[in-house]
Formats: sequence, structure tokens, C-alpha cells
Amino acid sequence: MAPSKFGDDFNVGDIYHTQAITLTETHIVNWAGLTMDFYPLHMDKEYAAKSQFGERLVHGPLIFALAVGLVGTAGFAGDSAIAWLGVNNMKMLGPVRIGDTIRVEVEVKEKRPTKNPAQGVQTWRYTVKNQKDESVMELDYILMFHMRV
Amino acid sequence: MAPSKFGDDFNVGDIYHTQAITLTETHIVNWAGLTMDFYPLHMDKEYAAKSQFGERLVHGPLIFALAVGLVGTAGFAGDSAIAWLGVNNMKMLGPVRIGDTIRVEVEVKEKRPTKNPAQGVQTWRYTVKNQKDESVMELDYILMFHMRV
Amino acid sequence: MAPSKFGDDFNVGDIYHTQAITLTETHIVNWAGLTMDFYPLHMDKEYAAKSQFGERLVHGPLIFALAVGLVGTAGFAGDSAIAWLGVNNMKMLGPVRIGDTIRVEVEVKEKRPTKNPAQGVQTWRYTVKNQKDESVMELDYILMFHMRV
Amino acid sequence: MAPSKFGDDFNVGDIYHTQAITLTETHIVNWAGLTMDFYPLHMDKEYAAKSQFGERLVHGPLIFALAVGLVGTAGFAGDSAIAWLGVNNMKMLGPVRIGDTIRVEVEVKEKRPTKNPAQGVQTWRYTVKNQKDESVMELDYILMFHMRV
Amino acid sequence: MAPSKFGDDFNVGDIYHTQAITLTETHIVNWAGLTMDFYPLHMDKEYAAKSQFGERLVHGPLIFALAVGLVGTAGFAGDSAIAWLGVNNMKMLGPVRIGDTIRVEVEVKEKRPTKNPAQGVQTWRYTVKNQKDESVMELDYILMFHMRV
Amino acid sequence: MAPSKFGDDFNVGDIYHTQAITLTETHIVNWAGLTMDFYPLHMDKEYAAKSQFGERLVHGPLIFALAVGLVGTAGFAGDSAIAWLGVNNMKMLGPVRIGDTIRVEVEVKEKRPTKNPAQGVQTWRYTVKNQKDESVMELDYILMFHMRV
Repeated sequence: MAPSKFGDDFNVGDIYHTQAITLTETHIVNWAGLTMDFYPLHMDKEYAAKSQFGERLVHGPLIFALAVGLVGTAGFAGDSAIAWLGVNNMKMLGPVRIGDTIRVEVEVKEKRPTKNPAQGVQTWRYTVKNQKDESVMELDYILMFHMRV
Repeated sequence: MAPSKFGDDFNVGDIYHTQAITLTETHIVNWAGLTMDFYPLHMDKEYAAKSQFGERLVHGPLIFALAVGLVGTAGFAGDSAIAWLGVNNMKMLGPVRIGDTIRVEVEVKEKRPTKNPAQGVQTWRYTVKNQKDESVMELDYILMFHMRV
Repeated sequence: MAPSKFGDDFNVGDIYHTQAITLTETHIVNWAGLTMDFYPLHMDKEYAAKSQFGERLVHGPLIFALAVGLVGTAGFAGDSAIAWLGVNNMKMLGPVRIGDTIRVEVEVKEKRPTKNPAQGVQTWRYTVKNQKDESVMELDYILMFHMRV
Repeated sequence: MAPSKFGDDFNVGDIYHTQAITLTETHIVNWAGLTMDFYPLHMDKEYAAKSQFGERLVHGPLIFALAVGLVGTAGFAGDSAIAWLGVNNMKMLGPVRIGDTIRVEVEVKEKRPTKNPAQGVQTWRYTVKNQKDESVMELDYILMFHMRV
Repeated sequence: MAPSKFGDDFNVGDIYHTQAITLTETHIVNWAGLTMDFYPLHMDKEYAAKSQFGERLVHGPLIFALAVGLVGTAGFAGDSAIAWLGVNNMKMLGPVRIGDTIRVEVEVKEKRPTKNPAQGVQTWRYTVKNQKDESVMELDYILMFHMRV
Repeated sequence: MAPSKFGDDFNVGDIYHTQAITLTETHIVNWAGLTMDFYPLHMDKEYAAKSQFGERLVHGPLIFALAVGLVGTAGFAGDSAIAWLGVNNMKMLGPVRIGDTIRVEVEVKEKRPTKNPAQGVQTWRYTVKNQKDESVMELDYILMFHMRV
């Protein structure tokens, strides 16, 4: 079955928005358990209180993982993507605290052909913002797309 | 309290190994629920059976998240790290299937000073390998360390 | 082995009570992940703050699911039930908020025979009440029972 | 902000399809823990082996909960729905086993106005089908929609 | 409100039985995540294959925790217990594997009064058995009960 | 491969410390679901408010399970342990509340040889302390170790 959307449908400079999700203590505890990351800044209230942040922070890789999920759930890409190739330039820009609400702004940053005309590679810039519109993470997400031939 | 370890204790070329963990259907289902990534290649056995892989695959970002957790649990760095700065060059090198067992090889790849002599930045190359010693993901993990002064 | 209880042991008008359970942020996050229901009224604190309810609400189907579990755990029916046939007249009567504590009142509402004298169908009315004794959900739960012959 | 879709956009007889999801042992164990339903037919392999089904079955209310989630994730309704009013005629039509893959067919079954011209009530028939296209559950889902005025 | 049952209702030598539950890969993964016990014998299929057991084992403390839960759910004690005082003589008697089904046999082992005639201490011997009726764990569970005065 | 550590490396009187972890509502809800322990003192805010404690308490067996996980994660024992033999003298010394942060102090309490000179049995006393340095649980953990021969 032909895809309903193709990489051709995305143009450099296009911007997409996802829904938002509030980060809770449950996210931290479930994340630690699934990924084995029990670093005290996330799991130990007393330790975190003495850190420069004054409270427990949400794990950075969880922000990345939720960015991927929020974009997927938003459905921009339909079934146009073939494969996830990787990530570049992932940067934590600010702390994410329990109770913060994040969403993702996606910008089509770069498109390039491959040797196969039916496949193209695109770099999408994900910027994760909190409820105050502060950017807390950014990263380049690289995808292989179906192209119209 | 002074850290028990410092960035000075790591030298370019040093190699560290983590324990291994087997990826299960539970990892996939719990991951999808926590990160909102219900893409059919991970969640729909019938869809996956018709894909080039023939079966459900483990989510790529979960491999990254577990790499972070496995390295943290291994305790190489003690309390020498101050902050996680980001990730570069994350690449999926091969599929990870339910029942595969992964571990991480860490190589100290690059060290550079900052303006503050008490802090240094290092790039650690994480290579995730499966039970057949095939590399399935690689990435550069960038950390700020306490340096001896 | 003969059941320890039979449908004959329940009479129209009988009332049963379950224990109570407090609904937490954890219930919402785990429920969303298991059932794929990330609707912003449940998951996005900022969105919910602007809604008529002013805060995140617990998913309605979770109230139903817990009603089933609370009644099962209470053990009224012993092993007298053969099968769950369905539900009718399920209605949300009021919002359930994080921190609310719910319990179920069960009333035997209707009994009817089947062609097989060893089996009877009963409708049990479940009314879910919160800590203020407000009814928040009601539904008719239809079960097939073993009958004495 | 005006909704992007209205109840007016759905007509009696319209049919919508969701993505599919495979039910796993993890779904059963996590569901039991969240909803307190540890009935042996779901949790005890030895008991289930002696039942008429010969193996553990997936909890019926989980099928309902996933139907709600699958439809929400599919995004047919956009932000046109105001509230969930209830469910009628929910019936288990066949057993769901570990490893089965379910999806939902939605049919707009009935539309009726309310006293408020900006609000309308609709009944959507959800039919849950497995990988063999067998119907395993059906139910009428009743929603209040924004109507164009 | 007076308790419905009292410690007086249990006599040395009384035996009680719980329902059974099948242990799954999900139990192991969720347990590890909640309790931080990622020991390779439980989590690494390759490591376990080379151990004397040949496969991953269920965590011992999970068997204890489920014994407590199975006895509580069975409801023998009603609301007669005031407090849990501790455990003695907990012994692993045999390995528990993924797919095994466990239940608990409870024997009232010892009763003694306290200075307060309204309170008595009892030791209940829990024996956890698998689907082959092999004992896999035993322990003495010590409880304070309400006594009739 | 020879173990990196042996039972010989631990001497009676040695003291070890683990990291700490904060107990959250998520721990209680996930624990109840995994172990079937929905006792109202843990799960029902209204019931707990009327108890002598005035609020929900963390399940005692969860404190034990986390003690095991915290000690394992701390890595004192390396791979010197062969098997877990059991527990003695487990006692709840005080209530643990949501928001409390616990850690474990381990003291090597007793060492004894076995008939096999390559194996020795040791009793390690675990004392669980909260953020106020109050002891909330203590227990004797019995392990079989590899011994140098």
C-alpha cells in the first residue's frame, strides 16, 4: 500500500507543533526503573535539595524520549518515514522540574536526496519548550523518508 | 564533600564495560506507555511480521536510555560528573529484537578544558553491543567533570 | 469442584460494599500509558487549568475498571460467576479528581433464567461514590452465574 | 479558540479505522495491578489451562479501555468532543488471548440535538476486531460534541 | 467500629490457602525497576544460561512480597490484624522460574498474649508452593492482633 | 572466570553505606499492583487519615525489597556472593511515610565456614534509616560467598 504522505510533503522551514504533557513524580520513578538510571539528583529529595537546583530534576533522556513520542502521536509524518537514522546536536538547555509541562516545536531543517530516488533523508530540528516557553532541549532528528518517484 | 573521582582520572583511549540486560516484551510495552511511542513496528505483531524485519523491534531511544542507565549503574565515573551536556552522532547500526541482550562499551574519546580550571568537558563514545557482539547503536555522550585544581 | 456460591445466593435488592481506593497522579500516568489515552484534560496541567474543571481529571474508563476490580477483590460473588456478558447504562455522573477516594455500592437489580437451568443471568448495578458520598459513575454489570439444580 | 472540527463533520454511517495493538502478558499483569483484577482466568496459567479456554484470557475491560485509547490516538474527532457521557450495549463477543492484535472500527450510529444548539449528542458504535477479523467486543460510545451555530 | 474478626478466631494448627499467581517476565522487569535489583541472574538471559539454573530466576524477595499480597487478598484475617511486626526464618527452598505458578499455605504456628489483654501476637508460617507442590520459600510472619476482651 | 571479590574480603564489624532513595506515591501504587497488597492503610487516604498514623504508610515489605536493591546497586559485594539463603529478625522499627528518604547501613555481623572450604556463610545486618537518621527497619541477610582456597 502506498504511503499517504511522502518526504516531498515537507519543506525546509515548515514548523509543526505537538500537544503538551505534564511531567510528574511518576514519570521519574517509572523512567528510573525502566532505564536503570537512579542518579540521586532524580531520586533522592534530600540530595537534590542541596544541589544547585534545590529539587529533583526530570531525567534528560526522558525529555528526548517524550519528544519522540509527542511528535509521533501528533501524526505530522503520517506513514512517510521509513527509518530513524540517528540524532545530532542534542543539548540540554535548562532544567525540567516535576510539574513542568513540555511540548515540541518541529522545524524541517534540511533535506537531501539519496542514491535511491525513492528515498530521501531529512533533518528535523526538535525544540522542547516548557510552560513558560523556555527551550529546555534541542536536537536534530534524522529520518529516511519515502519520496515520490 | 570533595568528589571521590575527577575527570583527571579518565584518559583518552580508556575503555570501560557495563553489565548486560535482556530486552523483553515488557520493556517495549512499558516504554511505549511512558513515552507515547506506539508506532506499529514496535506494538503491532501483524504489521511487524510484514515489515523487512519480520517481527517487532525494540524502540531505538530505549536503547539510548538503557545505555545511559547501564553506564551509570556500572559506576565508572563515581561522582566526578557535574552535568550532562548533550549527545552527538547517535546512530542506529542494526535492529534490536525482543530477547536480545545488550551491553555498552565506553571509550574516552576526547577531553578539553574550560575557562574554569575546576571543570573539564569530555566526550565518551558509547557503543551498544548485542549478545553476538554486533554493534547496534553508537553515540557520543558529552559530560562536564570536576577537575583537580 | 462445585462452586462455593451460586447465583441463587443473590436476591434482587441485596446491597454490597467494597473497600475504597485513593486515585493518584500515578493512576493517571500509568493508565494513559497502558491504554493510549493521553487526552490533555488528563495529562496536561496547563490545559486542564483552563478547562471548566480547573485541574486534571481521572480518566472515566479507569473508574469503570477500578469498579470491576474493587468488586472482584471484595469477593461477594465467590466463584459463582461463569462469565462477564457486558455493560449497560454506564454514565459519568461527576468529575473524579486526583486525590479523590472511590468505593462501589453494588445492588442486585435483576435476575433472569436462561434455557439452561444451571445458568442464570443477573444485572448488578454498580454505583461508584467518592469520599463525599457523591455518585460519580453508575453502570449495569451483566453476569452469567452458576445456578443450583 | 474555535475547535478545528465539529460534530457536524460526522454523519450517520461514516466509518473510521484505528491502528492496531498486540496484547501481551505485560498488558495483563500491568492491568491487574492498576485495576485490582487478579481473577485466576487472567493471572493463573494452571487454572486457565483447565478452563474452557485452555489459556489465560485478556481482561474484557482492558479491551474497552484500549478501544477508547485507540480511537483517541487515531484523532478522528480532533477537538470536537466536549465530554464523554457514557456507554451502552457493551458486549464481549469472543475471547481475547495473549498475542492477539486488536483494532477498532467506528461507525457513527446516531446523532441528536440538545436544547443548546451549540451542542449535540452522538452515539458511535465501536467494534473491536482481532487479527482474524473476528469481532471480540462491541459497544456504543456516547459523546457530546461542539456543533456549528 | 469493632473488627469483624479477632485473633481469638485463629488457633494453632489452622491451615489456610490462597489463590495462585503465575510469575512472568513482566514481574521480573517491573520488580527490578521498582526495587533497583538488576542482578544479572534475573535480568541477563545470556548470563543466566551459563549459571547452574540455565535460565533467569525470579527475585527471591518478590516471592516474599507476593506471599504477603496473596494472603492479604485471600482475606483470612479480615480486619483483625493491628500491625505487622516482622519476619523470621525466611528461607529460599528452591528456584522460581518464569512461568511458575505460586500459592501460599498458611499455618497458625504460635500465639502469645501481650501485657495488653486487647492485643495478642501470633506467628503464621507461610509456605510458598509452586505448581508441582514443591515448597520454594518458607517464612514466619509475625502479626499483632485485636483480641476479644 | 574467578570472582573479583571473595567472602574473605569482608570482616565482622565492617560497615558499608548505600545511596538513598525517596519514597513516593508512585512507589506505593506500583508496589500494590505488583504484589497484590491493597491494604487500606497504604491505598485509602481517608482510612489512613483516621488511623494512628494520620496518613498513608509505605508497605513494609517494600522497605525490605529496596534495602536489597540499594545494597546490590552499591556494589560492595562485587560478584563474591553465590546465593541468597534467607532472612532473619526482620523488624519494622518505625513508620515510613510518602516523601521519606531511606538508605541502608550494612554491618558484617557473622561469618561461618561450611563443609566446602570454597564456600562460606555470612550474616549481614541491614539497618534502614530515614532522612532523620531514625532506624525504620532492621534485618539479618544471610548469604553464601565464594571463599579463597
